[in-house]
Amino acid sequence: MTITGELLIGNRTRMGQNGTLTAIEAATGQALEGVFGGASAADLDAAAQLAWQAFPAYRDTALENRAAFLEKAAENILSIGELLIERAMAESGLPRPRLEGERMRTVTQLRLFAGVVREGAFQDLRFDAADAARTPPKPDLRLRKVGLGPVAVFGASNFPLAFSVAGGDTASALAAGCPVIVKAHPAHPGTSELVARALQQAVIDCGMPEGTFSMLHDSGHEIGGALVAHPLIRAVGFTGSRRGGLALVDIAAKRRIPIPVYAEMSAINPVLLFPEALKARGGKIGGAFAASLTLGAGQFCTNPGLVLAVEGEGLEAFKAGAVEALKALPAQTMLTAGIGQAYREGIAKLVGHSDVTQLAEGQEGDDRRGQAALFETTAASFMKDKSLHDEVFGAAGLIVKCRDLAEVEAVIDDLEGQLTVALHIDEGDHKTAARLMPKLEMLAGRLLVNGFGTGVEVSPAMVHGGPYPATSDVRSTSVGTMAIDRFLRPVAYQDMPADLLPEGLRDRD
Amino acid sequence: MTITGELLIGNRTRMGQNGTLTAIEAATGQALEGVFGGASAADLDAAAQLAWQAFPAYRDTALENRAAFLEKAAENILSIGELLIERAMAESGLPRPRLEGERMRTVTQLRLFAGVVREGAFQDLRFDAADAARTPPKPDLRLRKVGLGPVAVFGASNFPLAFSVAGGDTASALAAGCPVIVKAHPAHPGTSELVARALQQAVIDCGMPEGTFSMLHDSGHEIGGALVAHPLIRAVGFTGSRRGGLALVDIAAKRRIPIPVYAEMSAINPVLLFPEALKARGGKIGGAFAASLTLGAGQFCTNPGLVLAVEGEGLEAFKAGAVEALKALPAQTMLTAGIGQAYREGIAKLVGHSDVTQLAEGQEGDDRRGQAALFETTAASFMKDKSLHDEVFGAAGLIVKCRDLAEVEAVIDDLEGQLTVALHIDEGDHKTAARLMPKLEMLAGRLLVNGFGTGVEVSPAMVHGGPYPATSDVRSTSVGTMAIDRFLRPVAYQDMPADLLPEGLRDRD
Repeated sequence: MTITGELLIGNRTRMGQNGTLTAIEAATGQALEGVFGGASAADLDAAAQLAWQAFPAYRDTALENRAAFLEKAAENILSIGELLIERAMAESGLPRPRLEGERMRTVTQLRLFAGVVREGAFQDLRFDAADAARTPPKPDLRLRKVGLGPVAVFGASNFPLAFSVAGGDTASALAAGCPVIVKAHPAHPGTSELVARALQQAVIDCGMPEGTFSMLHDSGHEIGGALVAHPLIRAVGFTGSRRGGLALVDIAAKRRIPIPVYAEMSAINPVLLFPEALKARGGKIGGAFAASLTLGAGQFCTNPGLVLAVEGEGLEAFKAGAVEALKALPAQTMLTAGIGQAYREGIAKLVGHSDVTQLAEGQEGDDRRGQAALFETTAASFMKDKSLHDEVFGAAGLIVKCRDLAEVEAVIDDLEGQLTVALHIDEGDHKTAARLMPKLEMLAGRLLVNGFGTGVEVSPAMVHGGPYPATSDVRSTSVGTMAIDRFLRPVAYQDMPADLLPEGLRDRD
Repeated sequence: MTITGELLIGNRTRMGQNGTLTAIEAATGQALEGVFGGASAADLDAAAQLAWQAFPAYRDTALENRAAFLEKAAENILSIGELLIERAMAESGLPRPRLEGERMRTVTQLRLFAGVVREGAFQDLRFDAADAARTPPKPDLRLRKVGLGPVAVFGASNFPLAFSVAGGDTASALAAGCPVIVKAHPAHPGTSELVARALQQAVIDCGMPEGTFSMLHDSGHEIGGALVAHPLIRAVGFTGSRRGGLALVDIAAKRRIPIPVYAEMSAINPVLLFPEALKARGGKIGGAFAASLTLGAGQFCTNPGLVLAVEGEGLEAFKAGAVEALKALPAQTMLTAGIGQAYREGIAKLVGHSDVTQLAEGQEGDDRRGQAALFETTAASFMKDKSLHDEVFGAAGLIVKCRDLAEVEAVIDDLEGQLTVALHIDEGDHKTAARLMPKLEMLAGRLLVNGFGTGVEVSPAMVHGGPYPATSDVRSTSVGTMAIDRFLRPVAYQDMPADLLPEGLRDRD
């Protein structure tokens, strides 16, 4: 497979003529091979028209065929082999084991959704039997869920495989019976093209209707916005910054026909350290925290950016453990120069903040490599200055020292919606923790004990979502099998003769 | 039970001091007994604070207790007895059998949701077992759905019981574990108070937390808007006009934390008459159509306002049947003077339209009683003038005469989203109808054969919803058991010890 820089529109490819993008090697800032042509409004419209035409046939594919298509997509991604890993390493600066793991996650996710499709429960088939004897007569009613229509998916910078072209949004939308148009992330256009070609080939291999999948490059922000505004697009999946997500939400709300936007945005993922746990193993938790904080250069949505604890010996032990671990950590290549710069600006703001103390820094970085950093402030300062609640995307953590548990609770009340909350507890903390649970359930989509939010299992019981502004839609998850529900709507069929009913609704009479 | 005109805030009552409302007898325009005090911002805030305080305890009520509470609410509504029927008749102008039926529908709906709560599947409990041997270790993950938070419900004018204070929105929100604040519809404030007192008493009878239910009157539109904007409100249910619904959607989108609005708005509910069916029984379908069109003075969301058919003998027979039935129909009291006036204006616009012919009118009406009317136009005119697509709320129908099936299809492509589409078909029409099905599935939430959309069954397979602008959220239904899903969000619990887990998630280890 060669990287050509082309757009993939239905089963064809075409060099975009609306500006160009260059792929940048994250570690060096040097241009990588390949020039990528930006899509025009006409390219977008061509992809949208094909998706719309494909939709009726694609949403009524036999479940077995749709599942086989998702499995073929997984197989084709694996078949790219070493080229995919090398290109993703160059474009993202992420290390090989991480990207090999991420590829496996991507492939497993497609296969998991193949299983979801085959099993069929997502259709929520319902049958209400008629009763002619009732007054008034009760009709025969049957229900199934169908896809919403073509879905726009925005690739994320921080997971060039698992949250990008063939990531969770694409896998769940395709599983739901929705054609997908991906807007590739400019930080990894070559990786995007390779994966998109694997999907395009799967469409052809499995005889899916042309338009089931397309991928566009955008040389600016215009085509991404136009994609969300396009009348034939019926839902949007996005993972990225709060600013980016809210811009899409805004465009979607202003359409003649508004559509749902599932934007997974920012979170600082509070970590609550409880007294008994701190007393028993403060230092150990500190070390584990530092490891989670700096995983992938801290560029995870579930990065634990905030620590809440009552001051005292236990917290001092935690800090000592974290500081020790952090000091030894080498700077890590960040995804893009822009992300690196935003990180340095965020750090500078904390360093210069009169109520914030820097506790530790990792090994020195540079303009491409981020240096880990740990800060501390008081609960009073944190609650006073809301800018301290902002996510600093990267390996930066802030400890908020509280006078007592009441102050911990006050800080919790003050927080915005989150993806995760982690509780570090020992047996003796359970009672206190249990009392906070109703509050924490309202704060985040996932509550976890004695661990950190990084490591998002792709499984039925996962929720990777949460109250605004962690996501734009608290009713949804973007990871796990429940993600398919985002792209479905119910349709009822009343007194419908068998030859007009969709196949799945015919078989009970 | 006496009607006092008070607001019901938690378990207390208070006379609103922010302006007054008077109940009007629909048939005469005369004031009915009772003056209703409008809620102030402070009243609203008091209700919202109580709802927020009630929420943690209410959402974690044992399912059996929550179900018993819904059943008690049903019982208390029945206990009001004759007073409720008489007051609703006076305020709405709807006849006794209709209101007795509607009361039964309301009570059955509450009991149905009690069953849904008891059965518990709405929680979508999920269990992913841990696997310590995997690399990395797989965590224990459990998921349940919990209520979104306090829900604002707007009573609808046209169903003073079943889509009002204790209607489907309230029943499904309470079932989901969400406290409810109802904004009573000004067209039936006395009916609203009676039903609200029954719900308030059920809260007390069953020991539910105070604030689980409140009801406010609004002397204008200000408090309704403020209710949607209130930071402690987390979702909105509404049935009414498009203008009203879109105003609420707009307020919700502008909140600091946007919330879902489920607005069920306007629809003209196309009826497609197929050639063989028309040939075999055009006249009979016409008579049945007239009956459905004029049911409840045509004041149903599912009123069949639009007929599409190919011109010819069959359609002439349909018209003759409809005209004959309509002519004999007496004018019917409309819900409010405002609705009556809007209806007359809509009729006048059609009468004065150069491309529209009036085919029939019912018995003469007056300023309180609406006269049924049937019009005809051509497909070309209908597609040219989008104002002909507007809903005329009341017993007015428009036949769109098409030259051939291709033109019928062109008109379908031109329509906005609908709640229902009805197909009248005989065996020989099945093939044509089947070809249209994918298109019709995208047009409406419920497709039905050889009937009309009026008569919305409250059951598991019902969808009373549809693409925008029929509703503001195509993913939802406001009638039937699936309505509960609107007020839920998923929460995941990872590696959580049993004493921190909610009860339903504890029992599998």
